[in-house]
Amino acid sequence: MKIIRVYMNSLTVKEEQAKEYRRLGGRALTSKIIHDEVPPTCHPLGSHNKLVFATGLLTGSGASSADRYSVGAKSPLTGGIKEANAGGITGLTMGKLGIKSLIFEGIRNDFQIIHLSQNGVKFIDATPILGKDLSEAANWLRDTFGKHVAVWLIGVAGEQKMNLAAIAGQDKDGDPTRYNGRGGLGAVAGSKGVKAIVLDASGTEKNRPQNKEVFRYALKQYHSWLMETPGTAKVLPELGTSSLVETTNALGALPTRNFSVGSMENYKNITGETLRQTILERGGEGTPTHACMPGCIIRCSNVFVDKAGKKVTGPIEYENIGLLGSNLDISSLDDIAELNRLCNELGIDTIETGGALGVLMAQNVIAFGDAQGAMNALKEIKTGSPLGRIIGSGADIIGKIYGEPHVPTVKGQTMPAYDPRGVKGLGVTYATSPMGADHTAGQTVRVQIDHHSPEGQVEVSKKAQTVNTIWDHLGMCMFSSGAVQNRWDILGDLVSSYIGEPISGEDIVTIANETLKVEHAFNKKAGFTKANDKLPDYFYEEENAASKTVFDVPHDELETIGVDRDDL
Amino acid sequence: MKIIRVYMNSLTVKEEQAKEYRRLGGRALTSKIIHDEVPPTCHPLGSHNKLVFATGLLTGSGASSADRYSVGAKSPLTGGIKEANAGGITGLTMGKLGIKSLIFEGIRNDFQIIHLSQNGVKFIDATPILGKDLSEAANWLRDTFGKHVAVWLIGVAGEQKMNLAAIAGQDKDGDPTRYNGRGGLGAVAGSKGVKAIVLDASGTEKNRPQNKEVFRYALKQYHSWLMETPGTAKVLPELGTSSLVETTNALGALPTRNFSVGSMENYKNITGETLRQTILERGGEGTPTHACMPGCIIRCSNVFVDKAGKKVTGPIEYENIGLLGSNLDISSLDDIAELNRLCNELGIDTIETGGALGVLMAQNVIAFGDAQGAMNALKEIKTGSPLGRIIGSGADIIGKIYGEPHVPTVKGQTMPAYDPRGVKGLGVTYATSPMGADHTAGQTVRVQIDHHSPEGQVEVSKKAQTVNTIWDHLGMCMFSSGAVQNRWDILGDLVSSYIGEPISGEDIVTIANETLKVEHAFNKKAGFTKANDKLPDYFYEEENAASKTVFDVPHDELETIGVDRDDL
Repeated sequence: MKIIRVYMNSLTVKEEQAKEYRRLGGRALTSKIIHDEVPPTCHPLGSHNKLVFATGLLTGSGASSADRYSVGAKSPLTGGIKEANAGGITGLTMGKLGIKSLIFEGIRNDFQIIHLSQNGVKFIDATPILGKDLSEAANWLRDTFGKHVAVWLIGVAGEQKMNLAAIAGQDKDGDPTRYNGRGGLGAVAGSKGVKAIVLDASGTEKNRPQNKEVFRYALKQYHSWLMETPGTAKVLPELGTSSLVETTNALGALPTRNFSVGSMENYKNITGETLRQTILERGGEGTPTHACMPGCIIRCSNVFVDKAGKKVTGPIEYENIGLLGSNLDISSLDDIAELNRLCNELGIDTIETGGALGVLMAQNVIAFGDAQGAMNALKEIKTGSPLGRIIGSGADIIGKIYGEPHVPTVKGQTMPAYDPRGVKGLGVTYATSPMGADHTAGQTVRVQIDHHSPEGQVEVSKKAQTVNTIWDHLGMCMFSSGAVQNRWDILGDLVSSYIGEPISGEDIVTIANETLKVEHAFNKKAGFTKANDKLPDYFYEEENAASKTVFDVPHDELETIGVDRDDL
Repeated sequence: MKIIRVYMNSLTVKEEQAKEYRRLGGRALTSKIIHDEVPPTCHPLGSHNKLVFATGLLTGSGASSADRYSVGAKSPLTGGIKEANAGGITGLTMGKLGIKSLIFEGIRNDFQIIHLSQNGVKFIDATPILGKDLSEAANWLRDTFGKHVAVWLIGVAGEQKMNLAAIAGQDKDGDPTRYNGRGGLGAVAGSKGVKAIVLDASGTEKNRPQNKEVFRYALKQYHSWLMETPGTAKVLPELGTSSLVETTNALGALPTRNFSVGSMENYKNITGETLRQTILERGGEGTPTHACMPGCIIRCSNVFVDKAGKKVTGPIEYENIGLLGSNLDISSLDDIAELNRLCNELGIDTIETGGALGVLMAQNVIAFGDAQGAMNALKEIKTGSPLGRIIGSGADIIGKIYGEPHVPTVKGQTMPAYDPRGVKGLGVTYATSPMGADHTAGQTVRVQIDHHSPEGQVEVSKKAQTVNTIWDHLGMCMFSSGAVQNRWDILGDLVSSYIGEPISGEDIVTIANETLKVEHAFNKKAGFTKANDKLPDYFYEEENAASKTVFDVPHDELETIGVDRDDL
């Protein structure tokens, strides 16, 4: 496997062997490279930042739910290290080309399409797709370069270097709806003039495990766990992530009206059950069960349709419902779907967008519940109007623009759809993760614990942060964690036999913890201290009327796992 | 002398004796109180922040240029401790009432006028002056409460809690044009519902020195220095601070077109000499020599008039010319005066406003040189339109909104009108002062040194930071420093004999250094590290074509005086 460095200022390329990094993939690799190569205090949109793509160690192996890849950089949203991962087929295609990591360096003012194939790297002027909706741009790319290519691209928000700009990859059906959503990585791509990356794996051979026998055995074991665990075998395929709406609403953790309270009066309209029923009733192009990656057993994705059965968007996930729905006091799945579709066309993170609109609604710039107002406002992102720019800057900056202390962000990043007063383990993750507020950095909502009690949450979050980093390292979907249940040895066998390097279950855990350490070390040098490892004041002081709690996990406990930890 | 605490949530008041703080005034007092009482990580616009007014130790003594006062808080602009001081007569009037410090605590949503007199404290609904221009609001206050009162007030920007909102006091002629400009203190006042403070000193007796004889001797000595030093006796009275335009343009340090270069082609149109000549030629209400405080020998202020001799605004200072003029490629004094007038009516910091407009012009939202466009944009601050809100958030946030790395700020605050590549001592001050980029926190431009050389700048800035803190402690104008020349013993005599507490020249220096230490300690707890003690990347990397230099003072030297200093 090789590393390709693309120097965007000169439009030149360098190829390296990835030997040094052979045991690292995904987030472990992006974070290591950023830690080693990016000056921590540099401007995230300046020439010193790097944008690093990396496949997970199992990407392309054929293991279910394991074709994910990571993108990393210094984040313009948090000012710290960032990794965002996604499924779909683009990372898989990069892996097919034998590319372990693709590193973009330098900045430029125009926009390029970077085309990678067995014949090398080509640069194509991106003017024809600038300013277009993402689906239109993706169609143009596939019309131009062939239906068989896989693409990454940024939207108009990324072109404008907005904080909520994301990078989109495509799913197995060719739709550019698999998102490296968080942290403004689309803006970093924009600063480098990277409008789109086209990967053509024609002529490449299928990747094969180095030790077929062990691989087959481990794979069978892993797949059997997925198929015998209710979460991965039934709940996620049927209801998707939206099954969580019932759970979080009951916990008082469903963010409602700019995280002011944790349950919505008419939440029944937006549950996973309602979503499934609506899709099934409408029929047509809709499906409640859809895989973003080929061969995925879990298939938590879906395709949402309008009343005529015509596809609106896909997928609608729990985070979309929480941030673009209840957080805005919007309880129509059709409105949520349309907002989601707009986000996907603009190339923006739905979580950050929902956070941004929530703060604007708290300021009454748009009224709570005004879905049409929210849609109109989002459309201004395309024109780059002052309001569009304001939304594009994300919730944290909007709080500063409007002098509003009620802003649900940590390290500049909007909280995902769990009020930390209702799921305190996630509050610990938000506060202490090197990524800022991010549920995928240490998800605790499915842990058997009293989510309202401050007791034990630090331990739970700490474990979850390690586990999530393991998945991000291997390129595996975190939803398989319920099935794997920390049985790391089998994963060690799976990885070792696939890549031909000895990696034990213990090694996997060690690498994850080392990755977290490297990330904290970067953030520390970038200027983060324990003062950054906290939630906004109001979560400690204003009771969430639904959960009847404040966030009260003691801060000296948080410090043991945050940037102030002893081993840095 | 007493301390009055005003609890804005309950509209109640508590009076304390200020004994503990008898040797502290101005910035030394505001910073001590904030350090001791404000949780460093609190939201600056939330209920835990405090807004602290304090007279300098010499305020009201009759010493020339010594009626200044300080306002402090945790800054919404920098996130750190903040002090901003001003002259005029309002601090003086607070002193006449025997109030050493006025501390506002708590927050509220409506706006109040706080009326202080010998009869106590009254709260009056501020509705009649909300949304008004500052001059109109000040007139209303003086019509309502008597021409003899002195006022502080915030403008529409402060009502909207904008980052560039300032607090205005009045000069000896009653104009509300003496500004605690920096750091968004007007937003803190806004968050507390403090629209205006009216001070009525009727019936109070003149403050008298405790030891008349020593005081008279020391005062005579101090005044003779002011009158025999060319800077304070001639240059500042004749040309005001604008005398610096020639100097900085020659050094390549006059910020031009968003700090991209350090000299302007037609700078001759905006020099101190041209300003003086224009005012003298136009006659009428204009004057190039004007005192903001009664009895000031230096009289660096001025009143600028239109062609008909009608007053437009006052004063036009060097910073206004540099930030609202050359930084925007505007070279008409009439345009600069009108922009300055608008800032004064809106209640906003001219430096931060010029920085904000500069970044917007670099983005071509307004064209460089388009004075009318800039004026129209400023007017949107009043309406609170999205563009108005964007400008109101200050240069640093605008950089984040537009994804622009060329933003001349440190710790979130716009640099005053000295390109740090052209005056490197000020670059050191910008980087290391607890206040963020602030020339009054350590002014080095008048020091005899090669301003383009990196050598010796840390030492020069360090001394200047101490000296400036001394003036801010005593309530003295920094412009007297050239005359006093570090002869602290006479100042010790002046202070001791006035307040009746033994304070030596050495004590004065010690208190200033202790103040800096307290400020750094607050910032450290608020999360600042040496990563915050730096200039934006481009000052190190892009040559200023006028000075032919980059900023190259070694960072390990900076660390000795910044937040990473050893003694914290």
